[in-house]
Amino acid sequence: MAENIFFKSKGPFKLSVLFPNKRKNLIVKDVKTLDQAKKTDITFFDSLNYKDLAIKTKAGCCITKESLQHFLPNSCEIVCVKSVLFELAKVTAKFYPNADIDYPDLTLKKPSKSKFSGVKFGNNVLVGNSVKIGKSSFIGSNTIIEKNVNIGKNCIIGSDVMIKNSIIGDNVVIQDGSKIGLKGFGFIPIENKNFRFPHIGKVILENNVELGSSCTIDRGSIDDTKIGKNTFVDNQVHMAHNVKIGKNCMIAGQVGFAGSTTIGNNVSIGGQAGISGHLKIGNNVKIGGGSGVVNDINDNLVVMGYPAMPLKEFLKKGKKID
Amino acid sequence: MAENIFFKSKGPFKLSVLFPNKRKNLIVKDVKTLDQAKKTDITFFDSLNYKDLAIKTKAGCCITKESLQHFLPNSCEIVCVKSVLFELAKVTAKFYPNADIDYPDLTLKKPSKSKFSGVKFGNNVLVGNSVKIGKSSFIGSNTIIEKNVNIGKNCIIGSDVMIKNSIIGDNVVIQDGSKIGLKGFGFIPIENKNFRFPHIGKVILENNVELGSSCTIDRGSIDDTKIGKNTFVDNQVHMAHNVKIGKNCMIAGQVGFAGSTTIGNNVSIGGQAGISGHLKIGNNVKIGGGSGVVNDINDNLVVMGYPAMPLKEFLKKGKKID
Amino acid sequence: MAENIFFKSKGPFKLSVLFPNKRKNLIVKDVKTLDQAKKTDITFFDSLNYKDLAIKTKAGCCITKESLQHFLPNSCEIVCVKSVLFELAKVTAKFYPNADIDYPDLTLKKPSKSKFSGVKFGNNVLVGNSVKIGKSSFIGSNTIIEKNVNIGKNCIIGSDVMIKNSIIGDNVVIQDGSKIGLKGFGFIPIENKNFRFPHIGKVILENNVELGSSCTIDRGSIDDTKIGKNTFVDNQVHMAHNVKIGKNCMIAGQVGFAGSTTIGNNVSIGGQAGISGHLKIGNNVKIGGGSGVVNDINDNLVVMGYPAMPLKEFLKKGKKID
Repeated sequence: MAENIFFKSKGPFKLSVLFPNKRKNLIVKDVKTLDQAKKTDITFFDSLNYKDLAIKTKAGCCITKESLQHFLPNSCEIVCVKSVLFELAKVTAKFYPNADIDYPDLTLKKPSKSKFSGVKFGNNVLVGNSVKIGKSSFIGSNTIIEKNVNIGKNCIIGSDVMIKNSIIGDNVVIQDGSKIGLKGFGFIPIENKNFRFPHIGKVILENNVELGSSCTIDRGSIDDTKIGKNTFVDNQVHMAHNVKIGKNCMIAGQVGFAGSTTIGNNVSIGGQAGISGHLKIGNNVKIGGGSGVVNDINDNLVVMGYPAMPLKEFLKKGKKID
Repeated sequence: MAENIFFKSKGPFKLSVLFPNKRKNLIVKDVKTLDQAKKTDITFFDSLNYKDLAIKTKAGCCITKESLQHFLPNSCEIVCVKSVLFELAKVTAKFYPNADIDYPDLTLKKPSKSKFSGVKFGNNVLVGNSVKIGKSSFIGSNTIIEKNVNIGKNCIIGSDVMIKNSIIGDNVVIQDGSKIGLKGFGFIPIENKNFRFPHIGKVILENNVELGSSCTIDRGSIDDTKIGKNTFVDNQVHMAHNVKIGKNCMIAGQVGFAGSTTIGNNVSIGGQAGISGHLKIGNNVKIGGGSGVVNDINDNLVVMGYPAMPLKEFLKKGKKID
Repeated sequence: MAENIFFKSKGPFKLSVLFPNKRKNLIVKDVKTLDQAKKTDITFFDSLNYKDLAIKTKAGCCITKESLQHFLPNSCEIVCVKSVLFELAKVTAKFYPNADIDYPDLTLKKPSKSKFSGVKFGNNVLVGNSVKIGKSSFIGSNTIIEKNVNIGKNCIIGSDVMIKNSIIGDNVVIQDGSKIGLKGFGFIPIENKNFRFPHIGKVILENNVELGSSCTIDRGSIDDTKIGKNTFVDNQVHMAHNVKIGKNCMIAGQVGFAGSTTIGNNVSIGGQAGISGHLKIGNNVKIGGGSGVVNDINDNLVVMGYPAMPLKEFLKKGKKID
């Protein structure tokens, strides 16, 4: 991940400016995930799930809690706190004070024909500053593409679509009314005035992806949200921040993904299934319609039910009861 | 509830005009709920659930059925009918003949800069007559705000949003594509031509509320739909007519609320959960993702499952079966 | 089904052009379902579910698989293949090469007052070529009606609505943000580049239908998607391709229908229920909220649960476990 093209950093900051009780004069340039962070970045480590990444992180400093700090390498300056996410949110907001809410893009205007010479636009399309759209792409009427968004060639974007904070490959299809790249549902609950978690990530749709109508795909918080090559998604699907979907997946209507879950390649998910947050679903998994997935799933399994279980068990369970 | 600012009453009517077999010359000025109705209002009482309100009602007259009439005070003229809701619908339609369908607002036009001097508008925003918007609010592109809507200050309203028949507090965030204040799903089934229940209520969003993208929040039928202070709602949530949500709640993506349900304060609801109609959910309740709630829930309980049950039971049930 | 008014056929073709190993010089004019096909049409037969229709088909030729071919009448030239749907998709794409994706309608423009003299339009409405709208209909702001769509009289269409490839009766209500007539979720999975199934069908909404807000109703693939007279549908309902709903039904919020399912008359379906594909639900059936229907249901049954079962069984099952 190079420089953030969607949000402007107010950094760098000295670590002692971010955490006054930290004397060390470390320069912090950005906020990154454990695996993306470099020597000049601050990262965070809040759950044993991410232990393997913590051990290998190259981050210059890390916000964590006492019970986890021993996993971090010596090269990493440790900032121990009570609430990792709250401290992370506050630090991120210092770097990116405008990423806490989706302020409407006030640079939007009608696309200039000369700038987008190979692109076909419907009526009333609005495009922000520095948007790029590849040749032979269609953009439907009333669609809004906010500043700095990149769209590849041969894409068919429907009407009433909103795209912000997103990098979109070639041959991508997005049907009418979908909203891509929105701030996710992340905040620190505080009575009468929650503290919103800044969302500085983006949405990446790889080549040949298809999204149905009226989907909502939130961008990442620190990380990105990503849909892999040739994955097809039906109508009214909701994907929360930081979700990662592999290649060649089929996701039916009204499926919901909670935050930070990772789905492998060649996975098929039936309609209205729900996938909890922070899970890892393997390759070639089949998830039956209406299932509620609350645990990791290994490669090649077929699951169904609420909570989801291997199909054999689900069928057996049905029999035992009747 | 003062005068209805969203729908114009054709009243007052004499009770004998509404119900010809009622001789008494009572003047009826409006249609209200049991607790809101005054001496000059007509109300309705259709279910034992509302017995406590019926006993104390100050309504001048009440549509009810024989088996319930004895709960009503002597001060209240009783109108006994077979179908309370059908008679109520017909009476309400007499007072408010244009509340049965959302006729598009034909007063919409581009907002005048002088009238909304402190407000930032995106492109193609449409605003109806007598709309009020507080200073420092943003309104995103293509958003429609229909006549008489009130929006507070420091609000961030996204793009492709529709707001009608709503009163919105300060610091409220509404993300792209949400539709607020719509007619609810209420009608008397009649072969070939259902009779629509007029929706004369509104939506109230208190200060600091956040709504995600592509939510649908229906307005009240006789009562209002209301979301309390600092409650945050994720994407694709559906809230039916007359639902009331307390303060400081967290409602995850794709949750659905059927009509007239009341949710307490500090309640958290996981993704895709469904809450049936006319329920009372207490304070500090936690409802797991995917749950189907079909009964009232007392304060401080944690529930999960379909139908939802206390978490311990849900876990035990799972074990017994495997 | 007469000539396709939404998609232009490139046909007729000789059968030997479609399938080179077929020598017979049969002229094929169109692609139709088993029951709609005539002597000059090609049809398809892929599942025993449709055996009764296969026996009676009048199609001139039929794509099928070896195990099913003996059901077809002698009058029908048989084309045996390994993957019926893939061959059907390729043939349909030859007839209708632009039905695989919803290319935005570039004929859209502001409706002329003279052409639509009895219709009331909000602001920024866009209408394609050859659209017909009956008198006394309202069309809300920012709504798009693509080419060749027919809308009856006395219809109330909300704002931000998209209608394409649809025939809409009289007195129909469609609330804000619904998307009607979209390409469905049908494709042949191929690594790195799925093959999209062309969608040459339409959506038919009969008289007095009501659709809530933010629904997605996909058009048919070869067949049509249809909602019968006086059926009311709540918000955020998803209906996949080829679904057929009877008359006088009530469908609550967030219900999802997978493809090609048929629902009888007077059926009520509770919120968030999901109905699998290719099912037949009888008349007067009641399906409880949150149910997952995976089997056919006979007339007059009341079902609930996931998977859905007769209500008595569902209640019994609940008791046994606690």
